[in-house]
Amino acid sequence: MSTPLFNHITIIGPGLIGSSILRRIQKDRSIAKTSTAYDIDPKVCDRVRVLKIADQVVNDPEEAVQTADCVVLSVPVGAMGSVTKEITPYMKKGSILIDTGSTKASVINAIKPYLTENMTYVPSHPMAGTEFSGPDAGYDTLFENHWCLLTPTEDSTPESIEKITKFWQMMGANIRCLEVKHHDKVCAIISHLPHLLAFTICNTVNHLSEETRTEVLDYAAPSFRDFTRIASSDPTMWRDVFINNRKALLEMLARFTEDTQAMAKAIRWQDGEYITDTIVQARKIRKSIVDDK
Amino acid sequence: MSTPLFNHITIIGPGLIGSSILRRIQKDRSIAKTSTAYDIDPKVCDRVRVLKIADQVVNDPEEAVQTADCVVLSVPVGAMGSVTKEITPYMKKGSILIDTGSTKASVINAIKPYLTENMTYVPSHPMAGTEFSGPDAGYDTLFENHWCLLTPTEDSTPESIEKITKFWQMMGANIRCLEVKHHDKVCAIISHLPHLLAFTICNTVNHLSEETRTEVLDYAAPSFRDFTRIASSDPTMWRDVFINNRKALLEMLARFTEDTQAMAKAIRWQDGEYITDTIVQARKIRKSIVDDK
Repeated sequence: MSTPLFNHITIIGPGLIGSSILRRIQKDRSIAKTSTAYDIDPKVCDRVRVLKIADQVVNDPEEAVQTADCVVLSVPVGAMGSVTKEITPYMKKGSILIDTGSTKASVINAIKPYLTENMTYVPSHPMAGTEFSGPDAGYDTLFENHWCLLTPTEDSTPESIEKITKFWQMMGANIRCLEVKHHDKVCAIISHLPHLLAFTICNTVNHLSEETRTEVLDYAAPSFRDFTRIASSDPTMWRDVFINNRKALLEMLARFTEDTQAMAKAIRWQDGEYITDTIVQARKIRKSIVDDK
Repeated sequence: MSTPLFNHITIIGPGLIGSSILRRIQKDRSIAKTSTAYDIDPKVCDRVRVLKIADQVVNDPEEAVQTADCVVLSVPVGAMGSVTKEITPYMKKGSILIDTGSTKASVINAIKPYLTENMTYVPSHPMAGTEFSGPDAGYDTLFENHWCLLTPTEDSTPESIEKITKFWQMMGANIRCLEVKHHDKVCAIISHLPHLLAFTICNTVNHLSEETRTEVLDYAAPSFRDFTRIASSDPTMWRDVFINNRKALLEMLARFTEDTQAMAKAIRWQDGEYITDTIVQARKIRKSIVDDK
């Protein structure tokens, strides 16, 4: 057997993303010889033990990282800073730290102050996920054929970037390197804004009078069902994403609101041509995406 | 063999909905002994001939309806009035006219002036559909386990309501009778608004600078993909729905916009509690819908 990519990987926060990484390692030992899982919540640790998806599960952050040559932070983006502070003093020389957060500028800012010269840091964002969360929700093919975006900083050495690129490729992902700000802008429109709209429309339905609300649930059209599916994602994760990418997200929401108001005006004044044009343009985007695959 | 529900059904506008009805009839002859298809567009008629999904395809509206005991209007809601005007003079005594439009107040208003004493009229709205359109897009199980909402008027006799209820049940649908205005309000939020938002977000992406736009298409997250799928629906159909249900739709959009702005404010001021509460409420709606099934 050839040497595995890493000797020992530690997953901090084995939720949907973290537990999927653990499962993939179990299936492909050329990624890592040993895996360790740690979570701040002892119930999550217990669940990972029951699922038997990590070689060891520890309840102490120091113990979790001290022998790891790669530490993966897959916690809500708002918790990245405090978790990093707890673990970096114990990380060994030459180790690599990565995160899997959906926002990058804020996560890099939160992690940077706690980095030591022992480690290099490669910010990464696997663009995969479902509406489910927790260690039970993961599966070993979660990243298969999805993008993983890397946003290297001056704390990322060429060797660590290369190794982490290999790591995500072995998870099944396709890799691209992006500039940090640009990443946050692109993700604001393709992921954060759609989630915000989905959460909000469900909230609007909640505010309708009880009678209409019940019927809305009864008759839920396929389009509304899609929104509710997106809206069933993890609250803590998304609260943190919205707050941490607020600048890009609010800019995209402002653009979107302008476009919505233009559409509302066209509908009020029965401007069929404007409405048709908008829909025709919208369909083209779908076509580009589908043709791309 | 027992007597079929109808002797002769005519479908005006054999698109996604109309062609699915035709296909179901072909599979279950207890619905109708004979089926006729007519479309204003000769190319659609030709296509239906090639698909062999109707017993006969005619290019003349008079010929299409004169021997039918049930005529189904499945044309864009903006065309309901003009099509009705063309056919009702030729419909035979005791026949039933139904439409399949997604808006009901405007369609009833458009059809009513052209009804004669020869026929009764039962407005109906099968809540089924995909993002595809045209006679090729239909399939015989489209209505299976979906709702079909009826909004009877004073022009609907009890006998015709009963017969049309049976008709949609034989299509596989579950039936509910609703008051017209209430129908339009419920559909505005569960179907029309989600489509408006989906079209608009694609439009917002179109307006982004060329570089970001390309990347948005490259990286399209699952949530954005769902939006583009919804947004690839038929332009003429949706233009007509938006304009014809504009009162209810604009009211729902106004409520939604208020909720969006409240969310934007919470994000700007980092009000984590408000954001989490909104998401937790949104998830509950999903749970109600999923538990319902």
